[in-house]
Amino acid sequence: MQPVMDKAALEEFLAREFPQVTGDFSVEDVAPMQVRVRMPVAERHLRPGGTVSGPSMFALADVGIYLAVLAMIGPKALAVTTNCSIDFMRKPAAGRDMLCEARLLKLGRVLAVGDALLFSEGMEGAVARAGLTYSIPPR
Amino acid sequence: MQPVMDKAALEEFLAREFPQVTGDFSVEDVAPMQVRVRMPVAERHLRPGGTVSGPSMFALADVGIYLAVLAMIGPKALAVTTNCSIDFMRKPAAGRDMLCEARLLKLGRVLAVGDALLFSEGMEGAVARAGLTYSIPPR
Amino acid sequence: MQPVMDKAALEEFLAREFPQVTGDFSVEDVAPMQVRVRMPVAERHLRPGGTVSGPSMFALADVGIYLAVLAMIGPKALAVTTNCSIDFMRKPAAGRDMLCEARLLKLGRVLAVGDALLFSEGMEGAVARAGLTYSIPPR
Amino acid sequence: MQPVMDKAALEEFLAREFPQVTGDFSVEDVAPMQVRVRMPVAERHLRPGGTVSGPSMFALADVGIYLAVLAMIGPKALAVTTNCSIDFMRKPAAGRDMLCEARLLKLGRVLAVGDALLFSEGMEGAVARAGLTYSIPPR
Repeated sequence: MQPVMDKAALEEFLAREFPQVTGDFSVEDVAPMQVRVRMPVAERHLRPGGTVSGPSMFALADVGIYLAVLAMIGPKALAVTTNCSIDFMRKPAAGRDMLCEARLLKLGRVLAVGDALLFSEGMEGAVARAGLTYSIPPR
Repeated sequence: MQPVMDKAALEEFLAREFPQVTGDFSVEDVAPMQVRVRMPVAERHLRPGGTVSGPSMFALADVGIYLAVLAMIGPKALAVTTNCSIDFMRKPAAGRDMLCEARLLKLGRVLAVGDALLFSEGMEGAVARAGLTYSIPPR
Repeated sequence: MQPVMDKAALEEFLAREFPQVTGDFSVEDVAPMQVRVRMPVAERHLRPGGTVSGPSMFALADVGIYLAVLAMIGPKALAVTTNCSIDFMRKPAAGRDMLCEARLLKLGRVLAVGDALLFSEGMEGAVARAGLTYSIPPR
Repeated sequence: MQPVMDKAALEEFLAREFPQVTGDFSVEDVAPMQVRVRMPVAERHLRPGGTVSGPSMFALADVGIYLAVLAMIGPKALAVTTNCSIDFMRKPAAGRDMLCEARLLKLGRVLAVGDALLFSEGMEGAVARAGLTYSIPPR
């Protein structure tokens, strides 16, 4: 199954529907059942010591799986996160963008399940790992 | 075991160590192994339709358990979240503050485990539920 | 909302539908949105050192929430677990039954969410904590 | 970093230390930071309808990550599961063995984090996905 939205369509959708997060995320790549999303790290994402905050990483994983779902089913569906389990494994590098590799493991009629690996750009070893479930409302 | 930090001490600690979140959280109550934290919901927490964003709820659960740990062990420890599993169960009420009831189920030498229930003020039924693990570095 | 199945009805249902687990679980108490279930610990649940195995504890949490759902919606629904996040916090006491306090936090039309605390009988402090989601098929 | 235990060493360790699960699992492959484990599905793993039980799948994911840890650090360490978050995504095929692809994402001094994908042999699409954390006691 091929994606029905490409990078430009996903970014336009984000900008229109979620103006609050404008500039927070850019779509790097879209493939069947997976997307790669970049989060340019800014002052507001940081914690003392220059580390990226947990909520910022949660937001990145969440948007990654969300966009992976939309890429496959199109912009009309209002999917909502029902569960996220996230492991924080390494301290992110200071002053580096974060990248999210999101892939869907299941895209059902009512539930989608995916996982996300988060990286500090240029650093080996994932900073965090998350599994998310989205509920897909009936058309 | 009694808490070693009270409301004022926890809020002062937050303001000093996490100036980025000033005004985001206030401590309502501190008891042995538990705290109640309020998040005054502002424009920046919202999503289309007036609902509170997932990352904002994650942040509230995270700070709730963090403060519950600090209340018991004092401000010197640098605890970090290692895992969070969160279930989003109901749509938060628009224009209402959120409250977090955080309690510790285990406070070990190296790991603390707690759970958090999040409520929209005045609404029955928890909006979200989270379990979190914190790693406590050796003194 | 009151339960529609009592202890006897739940145990009869388990014995009829899940003969593989006969004798593994007994229902101690049923109340609105919650049940208490006992797992008499036997040789097959143990690991070296007399500790109860992780899969046995998972099974107890899973059956606890399952029975809490059935108690409320009746025996006709075929609910299936879609997610479980479990924290193992303390070593269970050797030679003691385990008890599960299961409660539902949400009982929706398609999803039920609950949490479970597991105890070694007579020991203070929960041995494990789990959050579970069940998918409830349409009638 | 290369594994310090191979298939034979891991299976011998399981047989010696966990005689209760003899015959439940066989090691198919060992590579740096990952293992593949087979669970020959037997009557005791089944639920009505021929589906594999949740606790059996939990057990497979748990042993997969456990063996991935031991393969890297050797048989002397007593690692214990501290957290598992598992998503059940598809009904396993009846009468088919299950396979677990386990990989470590972090192998630290005190915590190891890994994820596991579970498959019904011959069926496309993972049946379940799990993330697990193991605590590694000091030597």
